[in-house]
Amino acid sequence: MYFKILTSELASKLNIVSKAISFNSPLPSLQGIKIVVTEEKIQLTASDMNISIQSDIFPTEDNKLEIYSTGEIVLESRYFLEMIRKIDSEYVEIEIIDGNLTSIRDQFVNFELNGIKAENYPLIDFERPGNSLFIKANLLKEIISQTVFAASDKETRPVLTGLNIKCENNELTCVATDSYRLAQKKVLLDNGFDFNVTIPTKTLNELVKVIDGEGEIEISLNDKKALFMFDNMFISTRLIEGNYPETARLIPHDFEYELIVEARTLLNAINRASFIKNDGVSIIKMELASGEVVISSKSSDVGSVETITPDSYEGNNLSIAFKGQYVYDAIRVLNAFKIKVQFGGTMKPFIITSLDNEDVLQLVLPIKTYN
Amino acid sequence: MYFKILTSELASKLNIVSKAISFNSPLPSLQGIKIVVTEEKIQLTASDMNISIQSDIFPTEDNKLEIYSTGEIVLESRYFLEMIRKIDSEYVEIEIIDGNLTSIRDQFVNFELNGIKAENYPLIDFERPGNSLFIKANLLKEIISQTVFAASDKETRPVLTGLNIKCENNELTCVATDSYRLAQKKVLLDNGFDFNVTIPTKTLNELVKVIDGEGEIEISLNDKKALFMFDNMFISTRLIEGNYPETARLIPHDFEYELIVEARTLLNAINRASFIKNDGVSIIKMELASGEVVISSKSSDVGSVETITPDSYEGNNLSIAFKGQYVYDAIRVLNAFKIKVQFGGTMKPFIITSLDNEDVLQLVLPIKTYN
Repeated sequence: MYFKILTSELASKLNIVSKAISFNSPLPSLQGIKIVVTEEKIQLTASDMNISIQSDIFPTEDNKLEIYSTGEIVLESRYFLEMIRKIDSEYVEIEIIDGNLTSIRDQFVNFELNGIKAENYPLIDFERPGNSLFIKANLLKEIISQTVFAASDKETRPVLTGLNIKCENNELTCVATDSYRLAQKKVLLDNGFDFNVTIPTKTLNELVKVIDGEGEIEISLNDKKALFMFDNMFISTRLIEGNYPETARLIPHDFEYELIVEARTLLNAINRASFIKNDGVSIIKMELASGEVVISSKSSDVGSVETITPDSYEGNNLSIAFKGQYVYDAIRVLNAFKIKVQFGGTMKPFIITSLDNEDVLQLVLPIKTYN
Repeated sequence: MYFKILTSELASKLNIVSKAISFNSPLPSLQGIKIVVTEEKIQLTASDMNISIQSDIFPTEDNKLEIYSTGEIVLESRYFLEMIRKIDSEYVEIEIIDGNLTSIRDQFVNFELNGIKAENYPLIDFERPGNSLFIKANLLKEIISQTVFAASDKETRPVLTGLNIKCENNELTCVATDSYRLAQKKVLLDNGFDFNVTIPTKTLNELVKVIDGEGEIEISLNDKKALFMFDNMFISTRLIEGNYPETARLIPHDFEYELIVEARTLLNAINRASFIKNDGVSIIKMELASGEVVISSKSSDVGSVETITPDSYEGNNLSIAFKGQYVYDAIRVLNAFKIKVQFGGTMKPFIITSLDNEDVLQLVLPIKTYN
């Protein structure tokens, strides 16, 4: 195995692929990146057996890849990435020089790294598992950033640690909830087929870092796994098993109170009223009346109160309390200038949407307070 | 107590003063910042009883301080700083409104914080403890940055966790060592008196963040404490007790080998050869011969070798090994274009200085290797 490539090209692909590696994997070879060099391409693979990422690099004018001999090896990712970062030259050469001993070099320095034989690397399947749908990269990023934060980080109900994506009649409904808040985005597709899967948020959080702004992403699915494909990059993930709750019936439709306000104004007020507490939770109280909204917080040591002016408020006076972070997150991801908040009462879940566009819906459960 | 001040001025002084606070202090009042408002100034004080910082703020055209009524209170620093950060307005008002309840407010928001009575705050003495010397702020920063890194971080010999500063005949000698490496800087003063003190590195590391580039710093000393004064800012520190070792006799004067090389070239080579190991130690081997220096590292998994061209090398061939980080740190702080490295032999301490200027001397002990 012997090839030469633009250092920055290899570095960028290694950075992506290595995101699949989990540093507490029990299998030593999974701490490594598998490199397979054939006559037409080099292929990088990394995996923690839940997420697997593969990148094919073909010779192009840009990457100046030159393949001198074929072969394969697994290189410990930590050292391999560190070496590539330390290569100051435009090009780097990588060659197996003796058994598993691999040389990574430029004209200044020669690094040597003891690899692991590729045959010790587990077999990972990057074949399409089922039907495919196609979605714009930007849109997929938006879906992820507007929903995934609301998923649960507790393993008590594993299905809630994922993003549920359901497709019916070319309408995609994406939902994440930790059962105290819920984020839902609906998207109409040109193409599509009916499915209902729950994708681990860890995969989606890695995916969002890796997706380039432009282009289209192919997603191939069955009921066990999903494969994301773009730019000769393949990201495979297991799905979370189990039935996702029927969230549609949790979302209320009748409201007695409606607030319209600038997103920035409400975000700033919630931020000011939220103090970094030892238990990590800031409870915010909101008192709504015609023409003014009073936002306050109070604990034994510290308190805050301020009044903001809404664009409009319809309904009787209402007092409601909630976790500041939940409402802050929900408003922030809407990316809206003005928002609409619809309430059913002091102890009923309330809904936050952008005033312009109701594709994204954020639901938050209030909290009972005793003052 | 009631005053109004430019928010940014209060924020910057609070940031400095709060550096003295240690969050595992047993005394609750020491988690706070003491504010004393008299008719002519406000005074902020914080301390962990080892380091204490006090800032006097007098009304000026710039800070627009207006004092409406005098008084004193201790405010929990974490909440107080968070509130001041959250004040968006140019000015902030602070007022004790009821007992210990203090209002921190602008036209948008009213924060309330329950304080602690100032009488519960320990008495901290900011009087000059003894004679004073005066030193340029820039020079003090340079002394600290070129020496303190070499001090020990282990409490087994407490005196080695400090910077020893000795003044004899107006010559200041500043030394830090962990007994494997040593950094020494000599400075000639216009003024001075004989003393020999050891200042905790923690104090100096905080001091360096706080000192403004320009101006002069007054340092008043006795054998128990030091007080640094500048810009109405007072930083008091206990000194480390015990005799500092006589380091002068550890520094060799006869050398058989002398290398002159660009600092940047050697730094880059050491950096490339140093891998992030689990035990945190990278041993670098240097083989010196006329016209070339080979820098290499080797462990069971990973190795590196490169050749650099020195400006000159005098002496027989020499092979020597050392901790990469020690030599890297030593060269880096010299801020030199070219450096001189003088060796006495494979197992003798070697000396690194700037080629232009030998005020700063860096000594490193080599390591024995078996290959």
